[in-house]
Amino acid sequence: MVNILVCYFSKSGTTENMAQELINGIKESDSDVTGELKKVHEVDVQDLKVYDGLILGSPTYYGLPSAEIKKFIDESIVHHGKLEWMVGGAFTSSANPAGGNETALMAILESLLIHGMIIKGMPKGDHYGPVVIGEPDERESKQCRFYGKWMADLTDRVSKWNLKK
Amino acid sequence: MVNILVCYFSKSGTTENMAQELINGIKESDSDVTGELKKVHEVDVQDLKVYDGLILGSPTYYGLPSAEIKKFIDESIVHHGKLEWMVGGAFTSSANPAGGNETALMAILESLLIHGMIIKGMPKGDHYGPVVIGEPDERESKQCRFYGKWMADLTDRVSKWNLKK
Amino acid sequence: MVNILVCYFSKSGTTENMAQELINGIKESDSDVTGELKKVHEVDVQDLKVYDGLILGSPTYYGLPSAEIKKFIDESIVHHGKLEWMVGGAFTSSANPAGGNETALMAILESLLIHGMIIKGMPKGDHYGPVVIGEPDERESKQCRFYGKWMADLTDRVSKWNLKK
Amino acid sequence: MVNILVCYFSKSGTTENMAQELINGIKESDSDVTGELKKVHEVDVQDLKVYDGLILGSPTYYGLPSAEIKKFIDESIVHHGKLEWMVGGAFTSSANPAGGNETALMAILESLLIHGMIIKGMPKGDHYGPVVIGEPDERESKQCRFYGKWMADLTDRVSKWNLKK
Repeated sequence: MVNILVCYFSKSGTTENMAQELINGIKESDSDVTGELKKVHEVDVQDLKVYDGLILGSPTYYGLPSAEIKKFIDESIVHHGKLEWMVGGAFTSSANPAGGNETALMAILESLLIHGMIIKGMPKGDHYGPVVIGEPDERESKQCRFYGKWMADLTDRVSKWNLKK
Repeated sequence: MVNILVCYFSKSGTTENMAQELINGIKESDSDVTGELKKVHEVDVQDLKVYDGLILGSPTYYGLPSAEIKKFIDESIVHHGKLEWMVGGAFTSSANPAGGNETALMAILESLLIHGMIIKGMPKGDHYGPVVIGEPDERESKQCRFYGKWMADLTDRVSKWNLKK
Repeated sequence: MVNILVCYFSKSGTTENMAQELINGIKESDSDVTGELKKVHEVDVQDLKVYDGLILGSPTYYGLPSAEIKKFIDESIVHHGKLEWMVGGAFTSSANPAGGNETALMAILESLLIHGMIIKGMPKGDHYGPVVIGEPDERESKQCRFYGKWMADLTDRVSKWNLKK
Repeated sequence: MVNILVCYFSKSGTTENMAQELINGIKESDSDVTGELKKVHEVDVQDLKVYDGLILGSPTYYGLPSAEIKKFIDESIVHHGKLEWMVGGAFTSSANPAGGNETALMAILESLLIHGMIIKGMPKGDHYGPVVIGEPDERESKQCRFYGKWMADLTDRVSKWNLKK
């Protein structure tokens, strides 16, 4: 069973809504990948290695993910080197356009790259990962679902490689 | 005379409009700083050292400034170490929100930091520098004028330090 | 009295050594600026506004500052908009060259820019702020002292502007 | 036939040496992937779509890839949306540690993400891609060969997915 963890921190509920739309996107994909939705506080970092993909979401706080998400990343060091070839992704909510959301996404993605993960950008829409500005509108919700679908597809392929190894 | 060069590359005219609004903002400031508006092809890189501030603008091409702006930055190496304590700034236009505009601004700002320049962020609105998405709306034009005013203010102060040295 | 807070998180002691060298550099400067050295846990975020400069240091954890430093940044939101025109800076220690140290520095600097702070790069050596790889060698210690001196100089000038306002 | 283009700009020869080591690494891999070595001026951007992977190398100029590499990236817009699912990578040479090399790598990788490419980080050594500081030493040459091998492996797998589609 191929499984993606969608792990997020949310205060106002916007990032949580995005996470839910990502899960919807994973369900809509043609692959048989499943998505698990968890608040960052609910995840035992020890369990990380059972997943084939990890998508981290956070509000944009000072151009970066929240301290809660960073703490989770720091604690993931117990698996260093063992999460290589997992698929990684990021999403964020932000008060303003040009309000630090791209740097927040890149910060998450940089940390996942250091784990040796595989990431992928998008030629259309939000290039580095889904971003919601203020309240999510229809374009943004679609972007989240699309990202979920596309992450499911990527993870399915990657995990099938891994099975062949 | 304190002087800021607003140097830009523009194809569709959007970045040029932003540059013009920046100049308007410089004029509206209380300081007696002047702004000079030039397309990047019109600037002789040799003249860079006569300015007290340098604001570079570009459309966002693949999350970065255009090659024309990068060429100008590369050629500025003839002044390396001599542009320290100048004020630097950046602005960009972009097709989409989350379309690479923040990474384009940070790319320009990183290159100016390597010259030893002084930069400043904004606690309100576009944090790293003005961004226009699609056609400039009133909020965005205001953001450009505000940035121009604020850059004039910063450059005025910095150049007065330098006179005292 | 012009005062810079050098605030750091350190586990192995390397970042603490860097912080101490920064304080030495501040003392060696010609200006009468003073530096205060504090572990991040010792700083009451409420006191932040009494300082004229803030230099944040952290080990590089997954290409970013540690969660402890990020928590401090998140909590500084109580002052949002009121720390504008302060001087900001960053330093980091890292296990490897190309080990995420520049992205860690830029992450800190981005958050300070969002507060509206003034930052400055260096045309020689470590461009975005001091970096120690492994144990600090003489070049790196010098870089820290130099950065301290230069931050004292910048903060002195900026705070004298502010007095004139 | 699975084929990776290693495309570079080099002035002093260091980046060229790195490119050659990458090709050696591709040859050493267990997969039957081939690597093609080309100076950026020799590549007809129209031909890009025949490759399964693209690794771009540049000296670090002001914390970013050179204008020549950026021009190539800008011209690649003729294929926008059609290079999705290609594998992308980056390498750079730099005068100093903490001399802008990580931001140069991230700049290249950001542009490849915007094409929708797949990238991967490394849990050991140079996390975002190989970096040479000054003249290449043995650790750095090894890092380049290792990156080449690993990119061959990734591209082989990705292109086999694509065949199955």
